Amino acid sequence: MDYEAFFQTELDVLREDGRYRVFAELERKAGAFPHATCFNHEGVDKVTVWCSNDYLGMGQHPAVLSAMHETLDRCGAGAGGTRNISGTTHAHVELERELADLHGKESALLFTSGYVSNWAALSTLAARIPGCIVLSDALNHASMIEGIRHSRAECHRFAHNDPEDLDRRLSAMDPDRPKLVVFESVYSMDGDIAPIEEILDVCERHGAMSYIDEVHGVGLYGPRGGGVAEARGLMDRITVIEGTLGKAFGVMGGYIAGSAAVCDFVRSFASGFIFTTALPPALAAGAAASIRHLKTSQVERERHQERVAYVRRRLDAIGIPTIENPSHIIPVMVGDAKKCKRISDWLMEHHGIYVQPINYPTVPVGTERLRLTPSPVHSDDDIDRLVRGLSEIWSMCELARREMAA
Amino acid sequence: MDYEAFFQTELDVLREDGRYRVFAELERKAGAFPHATCFNHEGVDKVTVWCSNDYLGMGQHPAVLSAMHETLDRCGAGAGGTRNISGTTHAHVELERELADLHGKESALLFTSGYVSNWAALSTLAARIPGCIVLSDALNHASMIEGIRHSRAECHRFAHNDPEDLDRRLSAMDPDRPKLVVFESVYSMDGDIAPIEEILDVCERHGAMSYIDEVHGVGLYGPRGGGVAEARGLMDRITVIEGTLGKAFGVMGGYIAGSAAVCDFVRSFASGFIFTTALPPALAAGAAASIRHLKTSQVERERHQERVAYVRRRLDAIGIPTIENPSHIIPVMVGDAKKCKRISDWLMEHHGIYVQPINYPTVPVGTERLRLTPSPVHSDDDIDRLVRGLSEIWSMCELARREMAA
Repeated sequence: MDYEAFFQTELDVLREDGRYRVFAELERKAGAFPHATCFNHEGVDKVTVWCSNDYLGMGQHPAVLSAMHETLDRCGAGAGGTRNISGTTHAHVELERELADLHGKESALLFTSGYVSNWAALSTLAARIPGCIVLSDALNHASMIEGIRHSRAECHRFAHNDPEDLDRRLSAMDPDRPKLVVFESVYSMDGDIAPIEEILDVCERHGAMSYIDEVHGVGLYGPRGGGVAEARGLMDRITVIEGTLGKAFGVMGGYIAGSAAVCDFVRSFASGFIFTTALPPALAAGAAASIRHLKTSQVERERHQERVAYVRRRLDAIGIPTIENPSHIIPVMVGDAKKCKRISDWLMEHHGIYVQPINYPTVPVGTERLRLTPSPVHSDDDIDRLVRGLSEIWSMCELARREMAA
Repeated sequence: MDYEAFFQTELDVLREDGRYRVFAELERKAGAFPHATCFNHEGVDKVTVWCSNDYLGMGQHPAVLSAMHETLDRCGAGAGGTRNISGTTHAHVELERELADLHGKESALLFTSGYVSNWAALSTLAARIPGCIVLSDALNHASMIEGIRHSRAECHRFAHNDPEDLDRRLSAMDPDRPKLVVFESVYSMDGDIAPIEEILDVCERHGAMSYIDEVHGVGLYGPRGGGVAEARGLMDRITVIEGTLGKAFGVMGGYIAGSAAVCDFVRSFASGFIFTTALPPALAAGAAASIRHLKTSQVERERHQERVAYVRRRLDAIGIPTIENPSHIIPVMVGDAKKCKRISDWLMEHHGIYVQPINYPTVPVGTERLRLTPSPVHSDDDIDRLVRGLSEIWSMCELARREMAA
């Protein structure tokens, strides 16, 4: 077999479908977020980033940076080993305490990323609990799907954000078999939020464990940044809360929080936890500083919500079509892969506005979009320029507008 | 089902078997490696780490730390997104160029860890190449096994480091089906090194792709630190070289290097690459600085080899049983899980020597061991104390010694 020719052919198919990804090469400027330098767009130098998941700009926060500098100086660069073989540092242990406290749980367990935390925790729980049945929301993230798939446990998808469908499915199952219900709080691409309480009611009625992915919620919601489940007073009813240190907390890494036993169980059996080098201590210290800051400071969360509402109002006023949702994510709908890419390129070239086109397979065909993530560091001027750019391109391309608000 | 009781019972089984892991809580002192503070051993404060995979001490190298400080100040903490959605920074692109150059390949692709690079690359290649058969060395690392398993491709294990067995198996297969031969250069637990040339001969004879894991080789072997395959002049014959930034390079992250097409193929289809936040730019910059330094500097590699040979001579002289091998890893054989743990605890408590016991399932039952990793930063005095400690405990426990060299 000619392997090279095979790879080329498969890549050509992506190109023909408009699904071939070209990464924008950026350099964000600490202290000047959301502004960045762009390296690979001809004629483009300075850009404003409108699609970062550093939702609060904590990646440039002085408390985070100084914790990282200080730990780098004191402890060096890498952890130097797996958690079991010389890689557990004081900074990891302190971060795990901080995370357990954030979610009001006995324990927390760190992973190298949110992806790995979902994959490793779910594959371990679903595979190791004898006879476990997994019930997975139809729109769960790839990391959860791959983790469940890896476990080879019996898995049923329930209709997205539909506790009644979940209830029907659970009712039809053997009540004695262990069950794990897996869902997210904020869904990244539509920005909709799960009916967490209703899902937990169903879980409790059927004796199922609950596993919630709060990667788009932690830091952003709840009085201490514990996520949507904290905001709704539901954390203590959830078996496992999974989160990330790489979005609102501005650093990198993932975790689960839960009872001492469930965390210790995953710690002891998850291949993706055991056989990998631990996070650098400076990352752990930076993340802990970020979490600590957001446990008491409300200004970032308040400003975030205000900026999101303001961008929404401005887009509504000129009829740019978005998906309505109660979260901080604003999906601007285009509905065509190539058009979506062209709009993104045009915004970059003519306005220095960087918003990545989101195409299949990340979203279904026909729902291609620009996913905007306003943050506390986006100024009125940044927003003016975004609205102007979108308005221009919408007119030029004769794209459909919604009925205008004004 | 009482989930909590189930988790507790499973953990109790581990405890009874002597397989329950207790992590040493450490803090390495930058500038004073291999010395560290220990936080969770009563009466123990200062320790010498003898089991780090920061093989050359690059985690405290000024060039690495200053690149990280500088990038942290310039770009902030996290990348803020996946590689596709605002997370590709100039530092990532430069690091990928550095890695491609290191291995003499057209391209390289970064992952968040070595574990993820193996898991994501192998699961993608084996699943996406129609009819692919995987031939996997019997002692391959968990990350490779899980990646292959996840692909659900047909997989055959060949006898460890045995090109003849590989040849026999390939000869019995349909010559028209695509094949992927997966192996490591240096095996972490025994420290033995693969007959790479002979394996490549077999691959070429049967038209199979070759995939080598060089995580315990990169930085340490070859005139520019390209690994064992570089030292033996074989890099250009290998389809995919996988490596880590978290061991000899002292930071964190993993990668593959290969043709532009194979890297682009994995980049375009691997879930574990696409749907995860990119490495922080400061880590990418630190790793690039480390690689650049080790491309031209030989002193670390020479001193490393000298220290390993010296520790081996000293242990041989007092008859401490080790596995002979041509690498930098010195497995001191104990052969019993509980004894191994007790020796490790005793060395910590009485000599401030930290070497983690390696038990099942990391190594087979009956081959439990202390895995020593001497480094350029271990002084003669550190080695004297190690040898004294091992000699004492070997006498106290009446453990078997080999015939003494002297």
